[in-house]
Amino acid sequence: MTAIPETAEAMRERVRASIARQTMMTTLGVELVSVERGRVELALSHDGRFTQQHGFLHAGAVAAVLDSACGYAAYSVMPPGAQVLTATYTINLLAPASGQRFAMTGEVVRAGRTLVVCRGEAFADGAETPFAAMQATMTALYDRPDLSG
Amino acid sequence: MTAIPETAEAMRERVRASIARQTMMTTLGVELVSVERGRVELALSHDGRFTQQHGFLHAGAVAAVLDSACGYAAYSVMPPGAQVLTATYTINLLAPASGQRFAMTGEVVRAGRTLVVCRGEAFADGAETPFAAMQATMTALYDRPDLSG
Amino acid sequence: MTAIPETAEAMRERVRASIARQTMMTTLGVELVSVERGRVELALSHDGRFTQQHGFLHAGAVAAVLDSACGYAAYSVMPPGAQVLTATYTINLLAPASGQRFAMTGEVVRAGRTLVVCRGEAFADGAETPFAAMQATMTALYDRPDLSG
Amino acid sequence: MTAIPETAEAMRERVRASIARQTMMTTLGVELVSVERGRVELALSHDGRFTQQHGFLHAGAVAAVLDSACGYAAYSVMPPGAQVLTATYTINLLAPASGQRFAMTGEVVRAGRTLVVCRGEAFADGAETPFAAMQATMTALYDRPDLSG
Repeated sequence: MTAIPETAEAMRERVRASIARQTMMTTLGVELVSVERGRVELALSHDGRFTQQHGFLHAGAVAAVLDSACGYAAYSVMPPGAQVLTATYTINLLAPASGQRFAMTGEVVRAGRTLVVCRGEAFADGAETPFAAMQATMTALYDRPDLSG
Repeated sequence: MTAIPETAEAMRERVRASIARQTMMTTLGVELVSVERGRVELALSHDGRFTQQHGFLHAGAVAAVLDSACGYAAYSVMPPGAQVLTATYTINLLAPASGQRFAMTGEVVRAGRTLVVCRGEAFADGAETPFAAMQATMTALYDRPDLSG
Repeated sequence: MTAIPETAEAMRERVRASIARQTMMTTLGVELVSVERGRVELALSHDGRFTQQHGFLHAGAVAAVLDSACGYAAYSVMPPGAQVLTATYTINLLAPASGQRFAMTGEVVRAGRTLVVCRGEAFADGAETPFAAMQATMTALYDRPDLSG
Repeated sequence: MTAIPETAEAMRERVRASIARQTMMTTLGVELVSVERGRVELALSHDGRFTQQHGFLHAGAVAAVLDSACGYAAYSVMPPGAQVLTATYTINLLAPASGQRFAMTGEVVRAGRTLVVCRGEAFADGAETPFAAMQATMTALYDRPDLSG
């Protein structure tokens, strides 16, 4: 018997439900822009509560949202029931997060059963060159009913 | 004429003043535990506003504070007047941020004039094995009176 | 007076001359496939002298050539006279380097005066999914007549 | 029934045998200096075949040996029968590899069943400050009789 494949809508719902459980995303005011299999886009606005010493959005906020974009891109290609955790990522901060609205994309480069490698990019106010770039390694956990997606 | 070397107290004051300008640190509730030349320790408490989908402190909060610990370790060995920016870092999340209070250390591995490489470690509730490890590359900016430390 | 811009051919010659000075590239048998401003492709063949314990090409050989592809992509957008050094890179090894011929691409993500960030990908035998992915930070050095390209 | 724990000598022999199967290590002339559980030291000499464009040992050779030092540190804490693969690493090149003899250490930061995180450092001619620093994520593979250590 073959497993019934998950529909795109069920996958999107799985991603949405998991994001909703991250208070960090709610606190930062993150919006879910789009979800496809292997690609997620989130958005974030400038917020005076989360700045660094020069008044720009703090790299920590940028990294948190890029990490989530990559993590959910990985999660979108994992089988239902798997949990996703970030094992490691590298972020390059190419320019200050100067702007009002930031688009953060995460995309799967290659997916194995246990490890899924993704790349993320952050864009300010519709710019075409990213101001931050991430390369992330996500882990899939199976048979962990104690953890919810 | 040689420049008068900065005293340890002036250096500590320089670090404290810069942290105070990061609203992200204030919002996260970060405390400055200690500052020596080349080594900074910060502390963070569990906070329900900044959790991930399993209820642990979000990696984004951990990364933001480790990044700051590394950034200020680098800043502590830079000459007064220099500005510090994170160029890139890699973080490994070795275990969930499970606990009440987290110690985050940043230490200089090697300092050049422009690039300073640091390592950071995060410990939960007095544990001896870190639950997160960072390797970070910081940039020093000179002659930028438009930016304050 | 404006500096006369470097022609594409002069830039390519500058890259070729620098690669020729790397005995590591000659020893590994690396070929220069193409050079455009901001993008370099190198090629490498399987070689029994450079394998890991399972008989595949060693990650060290893969990383060395990807690092060079990224380094020369960065070098191609630097002004003549600048020197390029790798500050740091992250490599993900997505699958073993299984195959006979490996294409290694390096591409500039964003270039500043001092730091240039690049991404590299390695492909085996014409595959479309990379078996290795790199994110690299290159430094430009100026006024260092003691170093040649 | 409890598994009979592996002796330190059997573990060392397991590491030695695996290194001997890496032609890359033989070709580079790598020596195994010491093996303890969770820590491995390798050594490498300057070699005109493996230089970069300024005549220093190529970062690719440095990275290959640091990667192996980290990989074998991880392997030394894995159960016999497991295979080790590098998932990802980040290397910072803090200074050129200037010198005659290079010591490369790899040390386990934290070991899980599947992922083992290590740090490596490279030292030239007995220096106390490293000229390269690595943070690496190793994967353990189980039940893969088709691969030998």
